[in-house]
Amino acid sequence: MALRSGFARVLRKQADAGLQLPKQAHSVALVGAPLSRGQKRRGVDHGPATLRAAGLVERLAGLGCQVHDFGDLNFTQVPNDELYNNLILYPRSVGLASQVLADAVSRAVAAGHSCVTIGGDHSLALGSVSGHARQCPHLGVIWVDAHADINTPLTTQSGSLHGQPLSFLLRELQDKVPQLPGFSWLKPCLSASDIVYIGLRDVDPAEYYILKNYDIQYFSMRDIDRLGIQKVMERTFEQLMGRRQRPIHLSFDIDAFDPSLAPATGTPVLGGLTYREGMYITEEIHNTGMLSAVDMVEVNPLLGASQEEVNATASLAVDVIATCFGQTREGAHTAFDELPTPSSPDESDSEEQVRI
Amino acid sequence: MALRSGFARVLRKQADAGLQLPKQAHSVALVGAPLSRGQKRRGVDHGPATLRAAGLVERLAGLGCQVHDFGDLNFTQVPNDELYNNLILYPRSVGLASQVLADAVSRAVAAGHSCVTIGGDHSLALGSVSGHARQCPHLGVIWVDAHADINTPLTTQSGSLHGQPLSFLLRELQDKVPQLPGFSWLKPCLSASDIVYIGLRDVDPAEYYILKNYDIQYFSMRDIDRLGIQKVMERTFEQLMGRRQRPIHLSFDIDAFDPSLAPATGTPVLGGLTYREGMYITEEIHNTGMLSAVDMVEVNPLLGASQEEVNATASLAVDVIATCFGQTREGAHTAFDELPTPSSPDESDSEEQVRI
Amino acid sequence: MALRSGFARVLRKQADAGLQLPKQAHSVALVGAPLSRGQKRRGVDHGPATLRAAGLVERLAGLGCQVHDFGDLNFTQVPNDELYNNLILYPRSVGLASQVLADAVSRAVAAGHSCVTIGGDHSLALGSVSGHARQCPHLGVIWVDAHADINTPLTTQSGSLHGQPLSFLLRELQDKVPQLPGFSWLKPCLSASDIVYIGLRDVDPAEYYILKNYDIQYFSMRDIDRLGIQKVMERTFEQLMGRRQRPIHLSFDIDAFDPSLAPATGTPVLGGLTYREGMYITEEIHNTGMLSAVDMVEVNPLLGASQEEVNATASLAVDVIATCFGQTREGAHTAFDELPTPSSPDESDSEEQVRI
Repeated sequence: MALRSGFARVLRKQADAGLQLPKQAHSVALVGAPLSRGQKRRGVDHGPATLRAAGLVERLAGLGCQVHDFGDLNFTQVPNDELYNNLILYPRSVGLASQVLADAVSRAVAAGHSCVTIGGDHSLALGSVSGHARQCPHLGVIWVDAHADINTPLTTQSGSLHGQPLSFLLRELQDKVPQLPGFSWLKPCLSASDIVYIGLRDVDPAEYYILKNYDIQYFSMRDIDRLGIQKVMERTFEQLMGRRQRPIHLSFDIDAFDPSLAPATGTPVLGGLTYREGMYITEEIHNTGMLSAVDMVEVNPLLGASQEEVNATASLAVDVIATCFGQTREGAHTAFDELPTPSSPDESDSEEQVRI
Repeated sequence: MALRSGFARVLRKQADAGLQLPKQAHSVALVGAPLSRGQKRRGVDHGPATLRAAGLVERLAGLGCQVHDFGDLNFTQVPNDELYNNLILYPRSVGLASQVLADAVSRAVAAGHSCVTIGGDHSLALGSVSGHARQCPHLGVIWVDAHADINTPLTTQSGSLHGQPLSFLLRELQDKVPQLPGFSWLKPCLSASDIVYIGLRDVDPAEYYILKNYDIQYFSMRDIDRLGIQKVMERTFEQLMGRRQRPIHLSFDIDAFDPSLAPATGTPVLGGLTYREGMYITEEIHNTGMLSAVDMVEVNPLLGASQEEVNATASLAVDVIATCFGQTREGAHTAFDELPTPSSPDESDSEEQVRI
Repeated sequence: MALRSGFARVLRKQADAGLQLPKQAHSVALVGAPLSRGQKRRGVDHGPATLRAAGLVERLAGLGCQVHDFGDLNFTQVPNDELYNNLILYPRSVGLASQVLADAVSRAVAAGHSCVTIGGDHSLALGSVSGHARQCPHLGVIWVDAHADINTPLTTQSGSLHGQPLSFLLRELQDKVPQLPGFSWLKPCLSASDIVYIGLRDVDPAEYYILKNYDIQYFSMRDIDRLGIQKVMERTFEQLMGRRQRPIHLSFDIDAFDPSLAPATGTPVLGGLTYREGMYITEEIHNTGMLSAVDMVEVNPLLGASQEEVNATASLAVDVIATCFGQTREGAHTAFDELPTPSSPDESDSEEQVRI
C-alpha cells in the first residue's frame, strides 16, 4: 500500500505540474481539403477522411496539441468547367476550391494556430500557400515531393493542375503563366529563393529548365544519396533561414516516400524517401520551432492494392504530421521530471513476504 | 589425371595446414533460455527451438566455432506468482529463471567459452548480464533494441519485466527500484557509463528521463540517420573501450531491425535497422576481438503472419549471431593460403584433346 | 486561339532546334546473349526476351539513343560437351558462345556504337569484355555484383563458369588457370588494376585470396555501408581514371541489388544494393562520358515467385541500362531551352470570358 500510494503521489504531482504535456503545446487547426479536380484519378478526395480514420486527431492530441478541427471544406464543382486551352482540366473548380481554402488557412493562421491542411491533391497548395502568405508574407516553403509541380499551363503534358501549383505561386514566372478562369483571385506570393524541394526524382524537361534558370534550390533523391539527409536538411535551413528566422510552410506529397511505403497514391515513383528519412526531415523542421503550416496531400485510399496498403499509407501520413508537431523517436515528446522512489524498501519487502 | 591429382595435393596440403578453419576459432557455449514471462504474448518461449531449426549450430560450426550446446534451460513457473504492486507480471518466475540463467552463463564464461543466450524475452538479460558480470566485472554492454528496456517497476505502464531489465542492473538506479519478490539474488552490476544503446526509436518519457539524467550513451535511429552507422560504431567503441579493452556483452533484441525484416516479434516499431546496418554492427563488434557474450531475444514464431515471415526473422537472428563469430560479407571468414596451379598446361591440353 | 497558336509556335521552334533530343545522343548496339550454360538453373536464356518485353528498346529510344538492335545471338550447344576435370560444366558451349559474342561486341564497338549485351548468365562477360578489349585495349571494368566471379577452374566448388569469368580475363592469373576446351580463342585482356568491384557480399575463400593477393580494388556492401555510395564511386573513378580517361566496361549482375528488388535471379544474396544506390552508380558512370559497353546479366524470368517479381526485376534492369544512357532523376535527360509565353494576357482573358 505504501508503495502504491507513493506511486500515486508522484503521479499526482506530475499531473499537477502538467508533466505529461509536451514542453511546448501547439494549437493546431485541422482543415480537410477534399480536392480532387487537380488530377484525373478517383479517390483522392477521400484523403481527409482516411487520415482522420487513421487517428490523426488523437495522435496530435496525444502529443499535447490543442486540435481545432475545422472539418472538411465544401468544394462545389463549378458547372460547365470546360478545359482551358483544350488541355487544362477543371480550372474553375480548382481555382474556386483553392480560393475557399486560402480563406480558411488565412483565418486559422490569423487566429494563432498552426494550420494543417489534409488533401486532396497537390493543387490545393495554391490555396494553402496563398492563405498562409496572406498572414505571413515572408514564409519559406519546403516542398517534399517526387515531382516538382512547377509546370506552367503552357508546358504541362498532362493538363492536371496538381502538377502546376508552384508556377502560379512564383513571382518570377508570372509572364510565363496565362490567367486561368477561376484564378483571378490568386496573387503570386513566393520568390524562387523562398522554396526548397526535397525528394525530386521525376522532373519534366520544362520543370528542370525552370529549376535551373530561376535558381531554385532542390535536393533530388540523387542529392540525398550523395549528401545524406542530415546535410540536406542543414542546407535547406541555410537557404531558407540563413539570414533570418521565418515561418515555414511544409507542403508534403506522400509520393515523396518510396512506393513500397506509400503505395496508395496517384503518381508513385520508384526510389523514394525511406521512412527514416521522412521522419528525420520532419523532426528537423519541428526542431526549428518555425513550422507554421503543413499540407499533407495525395493519399488516395482507392489506389491501394489492399486495405493494408491504404492503412500503411495513411499511417505514414499521420506519422509525418505527428512528427511535425513534436513526436520524436527519442521519447522526448513529453516531459518527465522526477523518478518515483520506493517509499521504503523494508515496507516493500514485508509486503512481499506477506504475499509469498 | 595429372591435374586432378595436383588439385588433390593442394587440398590435402590445405587440410594439413588447417586452412579451412577460421583464423581464430571460437569456443561457443549455446544456452537456450525459453523465458516468456517477461511479457504478455504467447510464443517467445519457442524462440530457442526456432533459432536451432534455422541452423544456428551448423552455421557456427561452419565458421569453425566449437559449439557447446547446453540445450534449453528448464524454467519452472513459480506457483502463485501474483502481480507485484498490482502491476508487475510474474516477478518470481522471471526472477528465478534469470537466476538459473545467470548461473549457466557464469559457468560457461568461466569455462572459457563465449556464451550465446538465445531467448526468450529480453527480461532474460537480468540473468545473462548478471552471470557474465560475475566472471567479467568490467564488461561493457551494447544494447541493440528499438526500446530502452529501462523502466523501473514504478514507471512501467505495461507491467512487463522485459521492458525493465536495465533498471535492475544499473547501480545508479537502485534507490529508484523496489525489491521485487524473486529478485533478492540480483545485484546491480553495471554503471551508466558501461552501456551503449543502438537502434532506439520507442522510448517512454521516464526512460528518456533516465537516459538523459544518468548520462547514458545512446544512438537512436535518428542518430543513425544523422551520423551513419560507421560513426555510430566508432563512438560506441570510444565510449566503451576508449580507456581500456574490456569484454563486451551484446544484448540484441531482434526488434531493433525494421519490422519488414523481423516481423515475428512482439513489439515491432517502424523505422528500424536495415539488414546491412545489423551486419555492420556485428561485424564491427566481432572485429574488436572482445565479444564475450551475446543475447539474441524476442524472436517469437507465433507472431509471424506466415511461415515465411517466421523463417526470415529466425534467419536474420542467425545471421546476427554468425556475424558475431566471424561470418563476413567479404569472405575472409576462412583462411586460404595458396592458389592451386595446373600441373602442366601441356598435359591439360593433351587431356582435353583426348576428351574432345 | 492566339494562345494556342503561340504554344504551337513555341513547340515548332523547339522541334526545329531538336530540343526534345538529349544533349548528347548515343548510338547504342543491343546484343542479346541468351547464354545459360554457365550455370545450372533453367530460364536465364530468356533474359534477353524479358528485358525487351520490359520496354528496353523504347526506353533507350525515348532518351534519344539511336538503338541498333542486333537481335539475339544464336548459341548452338556443342554436342558431347563433357565436364572438364569432372567438375566444370559445359566448357565448350560456354567457350564457343563467348567467342561468338566477342566477335559481335567487337564489331559493334568498331562501328562506333556503345554496346549493350543483355544476358544470359555472367559467363558471357568472357565474350563481351574480350570483344570490347579487342577495340579498346585500355578499357577499365566496373563489375557490379554480389559475387566476385573470379574462381579459377581449380578453386570453384560449383563447377559453374558464371562464377569464374574474371579468372580467365586476368593476365596475372594465367599460370593458375588451365586451358579449357573451347577456350583456346580467349586471351586474357585485363590487369588486376583494371577492375573495380562494387556490391560484393558473398565471396569464396579462394576469391578473397585472389582479391587480396592480386590487389584488386573492391567495394563490398560493408564498404558501401562504411563509406557511402558517393565516396565509393569517387574512389572507383580514381582507381580507373586517376591517370587518364579510358573506356569503361560496366558488367552489371542484377543480383547486386537486394533480393527484395531483384528476386528473379539465380543466386540472390541478402543485404544488396538499394534501388537508389543502383541508380547513383549508373548516373555517375554515365556522367563520366566514357561508358563504352554494358553487360546486364542474370535476370531469370523462371525464378520469380510471381509475374510481379519478374516484372520488377526486369524493370529494374531496364532502369539500370537507361540510366547508363542518360536517364536521370533530375529530369535533365532532354534539353529544353525556352519557356512558352502567353501571347497576350488580354486575349487570354477575353477568350475565357467567352468560354464561361
